[in-house]
Amino acid sequence: MCVPGCMATVAATISRRGLFRAAGATAFVGSMSAFSPFAAQAATMSFSKVVDLTHVLTPDFPTFTGKPQLTVEVLYRFEKDGWNENQWHLIEHTGTHMDAPLHFSTNGPDASSIPAETLVAPLCIVNIAERAAKDPDSQVTADDIKAWEAKNGALPDGAAVAMNSGWDQHVKTDKFRNADKDGVMHFPGFHPDAAALLLERKVVGIVVDSLSLDYGASKDFATHYRWLPAGRWGLECAANLGQLPEKGAAIVVGGPKIAGATGGMTRAFALL
Amino acid sequence: MCVPGCMATVAATISRRGLFRAAGATAFVGSMSAFSPFAAQAATMSFSKVVDLTHVLTPDFPTFTGKPQLTVEVLYRFEKDGWNENQWHLIEHTGTHMDAPLHFSTNGPDASSIPAETLVAPLCIVNIAERAAKDPDSQVTADDIKAWEAKNGALPDGAAVAMNSGWDQHVKTDKFRNADKDGVMHFPGFHPDAAALLLERKVVGIVVDSLSLDYGASKDFATHYRWLPAGRWGLECAANLGQLPEKGAAIVVGGPKIAGATGGMTRAFALL
Repeated sequence: MCVPGCMATVAATISRRGLFRAAGATAFVGSMSAFSPFAAQAATMSFSKVVDLTHVLTPDFPTFTGKPQLTVEVLYRFEKDGWNENQWHLIEHTGTHMDAPLHFSTNGPDASSIPAETLVAPLCIVNIAERAAKDPDSQVTADDIKAWEAKNGALPDGAAVAMNSGWDQHVKTDKFRNADKDGVMHFPGFHPDAAALLLERKVVGIVVDSLSLDYGASKDFATHYRWLPAGRWGLECAANLGQLPEKGAAIVVGGPKIAGATGGMTRAFALL
Repeated sequence: MCVPGCMATVAATISRRGLFRAAGATAFVGSMSAFSPFAAQAATMSFSKVVDLTHVLTPDFPTFTGKPQLTVEVLYRFEKDGWNENQWHLIEHTGTHMDAPLHFSTNGPDASSIPAETLVAPLCIVNIAERAAKDPDSQVTADDIKAWEAKNGALPDGAAVAMNSGWDQHVKTDKFRNADKDGVMHFPGFHPDAAALLLERKVVGIVVDSLSLDYGASKDFATHYRWLPAGRWGLECAANLGQLPEKGAAIVVGGPKIAGATGGMTRAFALL
């Protein structure tokens, strides 16, 4: 998850902020479920359409590190054995996937411990596609969140907030990673100040259509360290966000329920 | 997916039926999407509650073969690296998981090709828990389906039909596999004649709370061979079906979108 050169920065961040935040993570996440409008049947949502927010995962799917992270091993073939079956060798943070709090904390909830009612959430879309097309280092800012609220009303408690930067259209080209000659990537993400504001708003998860919650040029994973240890989930490499309205849809985050998982392969749908 | 002694039966089944059915699978699944009430926004569903239908997956989760099918390899640790991350070595048909048509056909759709709108479906529950408690070889029969319809009205097009046998409560004991001294397992499943009727009813998927779509003592995977090559999906090892009404909920099947997958780890929710 880290590129050469950022290890020192990450180490400093751990000692400065990570461990402190991680210590409070368990208590915080204990109340996350209470944010959800579905925890107490406080809200009713309706839908008549399904949009798949998941990319097809292949062994050559672009990764943060630039190295392949999936191998599919054939175990049984129909013609010989009577059925087909494979074994996957899969690094958790590959393809459309969840980040669990444990990904960036010592003792935050793993993917199997995130309350189910926070994995189904009202979905609010922040569109920065026009800006990102001009500047791949664009970030969703706190001002973007405030502008969304000025137009659409307050973010509901227990919502998920997604960045639609249009970056999913680049998934089959080098522009998805968009690495420069020094290996620094350039794609959009959430600014840490936006993450801080979304914590205040009792948002349960954030979604990006790029490779990372942080923008590609980040040197310190500041948004990861702000967001995940606070007991919230992230979803990276989402697809088709451009098909959704700014508000009114629900997201269903089919994250892995593997004990100890720090996140991993996720099937995500929008219902609207 | 096969136990010792059944290979000859499976081979005979392939030559007798499997290849024939597989040949028609592609054409059939092309129309599966048309069954879905969400494909044409023909139906609106509402929900205010989420029920997790997924077991926590651990390396010792019971399997059809009796051998472990998951290994979690730690790649990075927060204290040393600044984040936590693992690699999974996972056989597809493990834990709460999907069977794609390709699992039991030569050229049926893989897990990534199943239309998303058929993975969100009205969920109808057939309760055989009382019968299964007395006889672990119980099966959901065509008569059970007709009795459900007599009580609840016709199964809607594009529905998923689940067997609630109460078997999920045994997941942490040997009774989940319930193997006798000869290695033959005894747990409930769908009778192939019920599968045939559900094909007529334009059902998109069937769900079991046991290890297999076929009952444990099956020697020929007759339900698998009837159901999957017809372009339908299955879900095995579902949890918490006993918390749901016989009708009125929707199931969301978060199956893996890995190219070539024959099924695999799935996060499933019921919305009601």
